[in-house]
Amino acid sequence: MTMKKLINSAESCVDDALLGLVRASGGLSLLKGHRVVLRSDLENLKGKVALLSGGGSGHEPAHAGYIGAGMLSAAVAGGVFASPPPGSILAAILSLHNAGASGVLLIVKNYTGDRLNFGLAAEQARNQGVAVDMVIVAEDCAFDQPSKAGRRGLCGTVFIHKLAGALAEEGCSLDQIVSKVTEILKRIGTLGVSLSPCSVPGCLPSFDLPPGDMEVGLGIHGEPGIKRSKVASADEVVKTMIDHMTNPSSQSHLPLKSGDCVVVCVNNLGALSCLEMAVVTRSAIICLESRGVVVARVMSGLFMTSLEMAGVSLTLMRADKETLRLIDAKTTAPAWPNLSNVCLSGRSYITEPQTTIKRPVMHKTLEKICSTLLEKQEELNSLDRASGDGDCGNTHAQAARAIQEWLQGHVVPGCPGKLLSVVAGLVQEKMGGSSGALYSLFLTAAAGHVTEGRSNAAAWATAMNAGTEAMKKYGGAAPGDRTMLDALCPAVDELIKLATAPSGGHMAVLQSAVKVWCHLVLMWLHCSLSRFFYIMFLLLRSPQKAASGAEATRDLKARAGRASYISPNLVSLPDPGAVAVATILKTILEVLEGRK
Amino acid sequence: MTMKKLINSAESCVDDALLGLVRASGGLSLLKGHRVVLRSDLENLKGKVALLSGGGSGHEPAHAGYIGAGMLSAAVAGGVFASPPPGSILAAILSLHNAGASGVLLIVKNYTGDRLNFGLAAEQARNQGVAVDMVIVAEDCAFDQPSKAGRRGLCGTVFIHKLAGALAEEGCSLDQIVSKVTEILKRIGTLGVSLSPCSVPGCLPSFDLPPGDMEVGLGIHGEPGIKRSKVASADEVVKTMIDHMTNPSSQSHLPLKSGDCVVVCVNNLGALSCLEMAVVTRSAIICLESRGVVVARVMSGLFMTSLEMAGVSLTLMRADKETLRLIDAKTTAPAWPNLSNVCLSGRSYITEPQTTIKRPVMHKTLEKICSTLLEKQEELNSLDRASGDGDCGNTHAQAARAIQEWLQGHVVPGCPGKLLSVVAGLVQEKMGGSSGALYSLFLTAAAGHVTEGRSNAAAWATAMNAGTEAMKKYGGAAPGDRTMLDALCPAVDELIKLATAPSGGHMAVLQSAVKVWCHLVLMWLHCSLSRFFYIMFLLLRSPQKAASGAEATRDLKARAGRASYISPNLVSLPDPGAVAVATILKTILEVLEGRK
Repeated sequence: MTMKKLINSAESCVDDALLGLVRASGGLSLLKGHRVVLRSDLENLKGKVALLSGGGSGHEPAHAGYIGAGMLSAAVAGGVFASPPPGSILAAILSLHNAGASGVLLIVKNYTGDRLNFGLAAEQARNQGVAVDMVIVAEDCAFDQPSKAGRRGLCGTVFIHKLAGALAEEGCSLDQIVSKVTEILKRIGTLGVSLSPCSVPGCLPSFDLPPGDMEVGLGIHGEPGIKRSKVASADEVVKTMIDHMTNPSSQSHLPLKSGDCVVVCVNNLGALSCLEMAVVTRSAIICLESRGVVVARVMSGLFMTSLEMAGVSLTLMRADKETLRLIDAKTTAPAWPNLSNVCLSGRSYITEPQTTIKRPVMHKTLEKICSTLLEKQEELNSLDRASGDGDCGNTHAQAARAIQEWLQGHVVPGCPGKLLSVVAGLVQEKMGGSSGALYSLFLTAAAGHVTEGRSNAAAWATAMNAGTEAMKKYGGAAPGDRTMLDALCPAVDELIKLATAPSGGHMAVLQSAVKVWCHLVLMWLHCSLSRFFYIMFLLLRSPQKAASGAEATRDLKARAGRASYISPNLVSLPDPGAVAVATILKTILEVLEGRK
Repeated sequence: MTMKKLINSAESCVDDALLGLVRASGGLSLLKGHRVVLRSDLENLKGKVALLSGGGSGHEPAHAGYIGAGMLSAAVAGGVFASPPPGSILAAILSLHNAGASGVLLIVKNYTGDRLNFGLAAEQARNQGVAVDMVIVAEDCAFDQPSKAGRRGLCGTVFIHKLAGALAEEGCSLDQIVSKVTEILKRIGTLGVSLSPCSVPGCLPSFDLPPGDMEVGLGIHGEPGIKRSKVASADEVVKTMIDHMTNPSSQSHLPLKSGDCVVVCVNNLGALSCLEMAVVTRSAIICLESRGVVVARVMSGLFMTSLEMAGVSLTLMRADKETLRLIDAKTTAPAWPNLSNVCLSGRSYITEPQTTIKRPVMHKTLEKICSTLLEKQEELNSLDRASGDGDCGNTHAQAARAIQEWLQGHVVPGCPGKLLSVVAGLVQEKMGGSSGALYSLFLTAAAGHVTEGRSNAAAWATAMNAGTEAMKKYGGAAPGDRTMLDALCPAVDELIKLATAPSGGHMAVLQSAVKVWCHLVLMWLHCSLSRFFYIMFLLLRSPQKAASGAEATRDLKARAGRASYISPNLVSLPDPGAVAVATILKTILEVLEGRK
């Protein structure tokens, strides 16, 4: 019984398929009355060499799929696995000649029928004054001692289409192309294996293959190969193939040695799954590289099929720089693959996974502030022991740990105001005391004024102003009362100036805003207007010096905050709150400057 | 028994295949420790939305084959037909985020496993602050009443990869892409049929299909379809599919009406032969066009396979100008086909064969001279009856037929000199008499001076000079003897002037040379210096008037040639030889001017 096929009839399948290809491809046209497909932009052939190939059908996408700028100009199709008639070949040649081509090169696979029919058409065309030449592709590596008919033409033909096409597109003459291609033909070899036969529509399968067997060295017309063996692993099958192809004792071997550079075509003979194709492709690359061969390019897919044969052929072409340039040249041919022009051997193809995520800057800033405060916990406690109850470090550490924990379980919101609110809540809940309340009050009041859509300098200035106003309101003090407000108000004024300064981008504004905010807190603890301006000055000129500004508070007599209740003698050390905020500030700046 | 496959083992086939794909594609990279393929140029994602897709293996080239600039940024593979683990999906998302992508869009086919695993990874990534969104592709048209799980995601996913990829490449935001893609998803529908089941490596075939039966409406995981029927013709099968897909009574139909414009994907489910694929492609285009649908683009090939299933799915996408622009946008993804951006419906795809070859100009000129001389045969005879033996037309006709015959059997040589020699030989042999000898002598002597490499104005001048010298030598006359030489010498002098005139190109030079040559012959027959200059003048000013110049010879008393032997009373009609040469001349000029 014949195999079921999705066609209309065995008789119409070739014409239906040609029409399908032409209708689906904007660059192709059908020559009326012939099974000939042409470039639809024949006018672009003027003065250039035109390339014509063809042969039996059943090898799709060969040959019509390779028609386009930079590849074939036309292709002639015969019946399934049958050579096309010379009349159609001649009609194709004349069409190309009449389009103004300076010459026509016939690229013919080495089968007697094709040689005769293309040869006859070539002679007829020559008699009519057309400059015609012909190259025969015969790159089959199957037979150790080829018959008198010579080696068969297989998938290597596609390489010739591409290389000759690129040369023709560049304007090379017919003689130049023939001469270059003839040289390249010596550097190509192909071998196929199959797990199944194929069947011509309306006919029985071309051969029988017992379950578990594969056929090695077959052609592309359903003819059996040179030997039959058990299906082995893909790695073993590919090694057997490459060994056979390059075995110097075979008359049809491809010379290949370590250091040679190759282009590889892994050609699906029709029905091998794409999964298997990819597995075989890996085997081929690894096998070649294990012999020291440089794999420059790999094409893997359907290029020269044999109907629904579940097999694969390997074509190797030794390639120099010039050959690669021609392979990489652009073409509009619909069946040419989207190759990259990178040498595959030696390139890095493994990406290291990054287990940690690159945080948004505010996330990163907060993380660093927390870890730095935890590092400084004992230092801050020690300072606090001089003027207070010695828990300033612990208090800040509680806040830091709360923020760290929150960061691990949550996404830092894109809206800065939301983040300020979250931090305000955490600080209030986990830090406690008046420090917590004060940090929190300022942050909460500021939060509503910096949103995702509005977080520029002006927004930050407004936010700072709102924080200040909140403190005025809930602290019950006014400027001039020698409280923190004496520092806050000028700072906010300063920030508003920044808002109208030339834009330094979001980051610069954030940087300035954070600086000012930190100093507001610092100043609010110390309430010294002159100190505020001194540190502000240092900060704007050299952020690193801000820390030394806090250091300088050791000589200040604390007039506000809790330190004002204790004897001036006890405040010879810098205020721990001021140190904490300076630490926060320094960390923020380092993160923003990309140093942490 | 399980099917034979060309793999290393069922366990390793997915990893082997991924490595094969990555090794063969210069633009791809493998994420270490995961079945994740990434663009190797991740740096180009900075500030753009990254696209991630994936799902079970066995659908190659989906999904990794669609990775590249203008399509996916990465793809995650599960086992064969199995959803990938969320850990790998998350690792892929984080890699894209860390590369600087402004957001990550997950493109997921509507299967419970994929929805859950991609969804989980998306939530985890969001918790880490990554902007992630997800679109679900569910375009299966098989079920009239889809289950609660909804329609399956099939080959239409590839369209989404392309469209979203083009939008991301253009710099659209995550929200913009999601919004556009969500709209496009409503305009896509897919239906598959198969002539065979497939089998997961190491497993039995997914279902049994009796010989001659096909399964309609199947998914891509080997699951059977909605109904089974006998394999019909490709046209019938495609019509059934499109009817089903667009049937408004089905809840999962694709609305499609006359005038709609579509992009079509004819997707090989794995093992359908390329011949059958092309036949089905034709059927699809014809069926859609018969309903008034405009087929804008067609992709035909392996896009979303189901291992080695011998089937095909059709995906239709209603497309506007913007959709086509995105489909046409460039991509480096290895599995995207080389499409042309021409609207397929309505374009002309038939080329008329030209049965006659476009001749080189000299060939064409000779052909026209011959046919014109044959037309004028009786007219020339009639003129000759007045002054001679009435065979001037016959003599020229003999030469014309000889030249015609030669042209049919030979190639016009590229070397003009060779052609002059050939014509000289023919004229001598077939025309005979003194006319033949004279034409031949001039042509033979001239021939050696115009070669393929040297046929410019100077060469033609030299050739004419040589012809003249030959006549001097063999005619035994000198200038001033009142022979043809009195005309020839000034003509050659004239031609030499032309040779040093500004180049008007090969054609112009040839034109001038032919003009002069014809007149030399004309003058040589009539030997009137004043007539020569008069006709020469007419010719240079208006070639058409040259014929009337010959007409004017009717009043000349023939002084040379055979007419000089007869009574002046008999020469009231123009000299037939002069008329013949004027005819030749007129024809040459008409051909050169492209009017014949």
